[in-house]
Amino acid sequence: MFSGDPPATPLLGDFLAAEHGSVLDAMADWVRIPSIGAQPVHHRDVAVSAEWCAERMAAAGLEHVDVLSTRGHPAVYGDWLHADGALTALVYGHHDVQPVDPVDEWHSPPFEPTVRSGRMFGRGASDDKGQVLCHLEAIRGLLGGQGPGALPVNVKVLVEGEEETGSPHFESLLDAERERLACDVVVVSDSSMWAADVPSISTGMRGLVAFDITLRTAGRDLHSGVFGGAVPNAAHWAARLVAALHDGAGRVTLPGFYDDVRPLTAADRADMATLPLDEAAWAAAASVTCLEGEAGHSLLERLWARPTCDVTGLHSGYGGAGFKTIIPGSAGAKVTFRLVPDQSPAAVATAFEAWAPAQVPAGVHLEIHREAAIGPALTPTGHPAVAALARAISRVWGREPLFTRSGGSGPEEALGRRLAAPVLHLGVGLNADRIHAPDEGVDLDQVGRGVLAALPC
Amino acid sequence: MFSGDPPATPLLGDFLAAEHGSVLDAMADWVRIPSIGAQPVHHRDVAVSAEWCAERMAAAGLEHVDVLSTRGHPAVYGDWLHADGALTALVYGHHDVQPVDPVDEWHSPPFEPTVRSGRMFGRGASDDKGQVLCHLEAIRGLLGGQGPGALPVNVKVLVEGEEETGSPHFESLLDAERERLACDVVVVSDSSMWAADVPSISTGMRGLVAFDITLRTAGRDLHSGVFGGAVPNAAHWAARLVAALHDGAGRVTLPGFYDDVRPLTAADRADMATLPLDEAAWAAAASVTCLEGEAGHSLLERLWARPTCDVTGLHSGYGGAGFKTIIPGSAGAKVTFRLVPDQSPAAVATAFEAWAPAQVPAGVHLEIHREAAIGPALTPTGHPAVAALARAISRVWGREPLFTRSGGSGPEEALGRRLAAPVLHLGVGLNADRIHAPDEGVDLDQVGRGVLAALPC
Repeated sequence: MFSGDPPATPLLGDFLAAEHGSVLDAMADWVRIPSIGAQPVHHRDVAVSAEWCAERMAAAGLEHVDVLSTRGHPAVYGDWLHADGALTALVYGHHDVQPVDPVDEWHSPPFEPTVRSGRMFGRGASDDKGQVLCHLEAIRGLLGGQGPGALPVNVKVLVEGEEETGSPHFESLLDAERERLACDVVVVSDSSMWAADVPSISTGMRGLVAFDITLRTAGRDLHSGVFGGAVPNAAHWAARLVAALHDGAGRVTLPGFYDDVRPLTAADRADMATLPLDEAAWAAAASVTCLEGEAGHSLLERLWARPTCDVTGLHSGYGGAGFKTIIPGSAGAKVTFRLVPDQSPAAVATAFEAWAPAQVPAGVHLEIHREAAIGPALTPTGHPAVAALARAISRVWGREPLFTRSGGSGPEEALGRRLAAPVLHLGVGLNADRIHAPDEGVDLDQVGRGVLAALPC
Repeated sequence: MFSGDPPATPLLGDFLAAEHGSVLDAMADWVRIPSIGAQPVHHRDVAVSAEWCAERMAAAGLEHVDVLSTRGHPAVYGDWLHADGALTALVYGHHDVQPVDPVDEWHSPPFEPTVRSGRMFGRGASDDKGQVLCHLEAIRGLLGGQGPGALPVNVKVLVEGEEETGSPHFESLLDAERERLACDVVVVSDSSMWAADVPSISTGMRGLVAFDITLRTAGRDLHSGVFGGAVPNAAHWAARLVAALHDGAGRVTLPGFYDDVRPLTAADRADMATLPLDEAAWAAAASVTCLEGEAGHSLLERLWARPTCDVTGLHSGYGGAGFKTIIPGSAGAKVTFRLVPDQSPAAVATAFEAWAPAQVPAGVHLEIHREAAIGPALTPTGHPAVAALARAISRVWGREPLFTRSGGSGPEEALGRRLAAPVLHLGVGLNADRIHAPDEGVDLDQVGRGVLAALPC
């Protein structure tokens, strides 16, 4: 895979030309399965998605295909291990997807995949079913009827079912399946490129800790006329808690939060500065009209190399039409922290669990539930596998890739640590993919290039 | 009504004994109609409720019964004007009800009235259908088959359909119907007594202005990994806005908010101090474990005579199970102010509409929609009608009533001002009625006493 020059790709190009409709159909079939891991009503759908994936692996020519049960949602495994003496690559992706609300903001239903202007829209089209399919279709192209019937490297494919819910059982799975998953290099396809015409390789991801907080001030909602002025209001205390998370300079106020942050090197800063970034265009793509963040850091540093705190949900009291004269008795807040090397998810979680209750008076009751803890990850850019991936991308995209990072979080840190292998990112997503938001979609040209660059890259 | 001693009540007592089941059935029938004025899906039910009320008025013996259309929900009118030379009393109540969420916190469904332990539970049982029925049933007792066929005073009954949505068309209605509604005194039954064994007369209500605020930071929710650290978060800015509404002393920060507040007199403070208040028991009844409020004021002053601000709803981002790694692009907040004499709803609204946008930076967009504006009201306690009402209450409850106020808001200020008549409160609710909350209910003994004290009190 990364020994010497990559094979030419005309064979996969022919395959893609012939099988374009079949690849699209497969994507649509998979996206149609509403495998939302966070929502109990969709738990059965995650299992259906795993079965679909297993069938597609077998159809591609992978062997030992197996749906791996966990204490949560199942992962799927398949391999092809006949390249004697060659390296073994473990391809990682996930088949679970994010919730779809606010569903009325989608221009086409999230689980009715629709192609418009060269993009397929649907939840999971980019994150991550479309990216996983790049590998499965490349394998099908090489092992299938028209292909050579062999891959240039040994390949193991692991498609997780709990990535969007923080991979709570992934480490246990890696531990239990250590032998079966042993590899020389991990290839992750769950990230984005800088732009369709500026290919890039992501070399780092942030970590994540997430909390679901319930705040109670009363046993029930209270009439704001009868009780207003003398009782605590859960919406007020939740707002004060959220407002207290940041200072005026955009820094997270949690004590000790920045203590373990590894400072950027001059080389890191130089790499980021070479990226062609138009802040106004970036803001427009983000659909925002102002930027903000931690003082003293550039936009890319804020996104990739600085830790953050974002409240992802805040709910209290009446939210319907008109108004309701109540004092809310409870509030819910979802608080996430993104972490960078060398922060520890456990240390941040412990600090937050001590800090939050200290922000409210006695009589305001907090329940804090830890939802996820994922470590930050960095790929050593000097590794020969990184150079090999860069060559493959150059060949397909026609341009040397730049190094980026991703501000997102995933199980990459656990993969690299548990399997003791370097983690490479071949991500074909784009910022315009609106992952996790309404109108998620994927650029079909990027998917095609992903097939060409996947194996044998 | 308030000239000399009230007539004895044995006749209404006999009526109640004979018709107890019929009164209960009528309450249950009316409560069964989900006349939630705030929710478009229930608009037809408000109209059905008006028709039900009109039929009950006619059955009670009222004449000129009429459903009064407004640009919103209909009111209902009926009168009996044959007490030549006697005064004319206008009885006011409302037939619309509050929303019922969180519906899963009700022990019996909100629109399936259920009697347990001497209380009827159901949305509207206390606020205000049960209280309106006190008057309608008293009239039926006197005008019906067993009664004298006459009332001691002229009576007009006006039952509004928009009280719970801030009475947006009530002033127009009062204006349009000025002649038909002309009266010497207004009797409002939409309030509470201090306790079943401590009867009281409410002499004041707070005013209200309410706002529905939408805050937008982005055109959509954004992935918190991809964008986190560099874009504004709507949940954060909504929280900061809410947190900025109060200072550390529990005072509202809106500039000029307290400028027009009429200070309490020594007599006002003395009246409040005579009320038997056990703060711990009050807190327990409110289901709270701490009290808070404006520094320098007693509990009752905070509730009745000081203005407040309560956020009644705050919603942003994901609120389902698990978590979703987004940066919310929008947030909604419902903000209400309770006002006291001599604050002006219009002045407070104008101040808020200037203050709120100044709390957020450019790029965070606020839409502020004014939902309601109701003035504060005070009854002159020296008026002879107040003394007459006190005698009627003494006779039925066996104890002199104390003077209280209500912290709630209603159209009483408009009634008194538009009809140029003193406003009396004969409220039979209790603090335990949980109005506006799950498990709203009414004490059936209080309803019975309300019938006895209503007319001819």
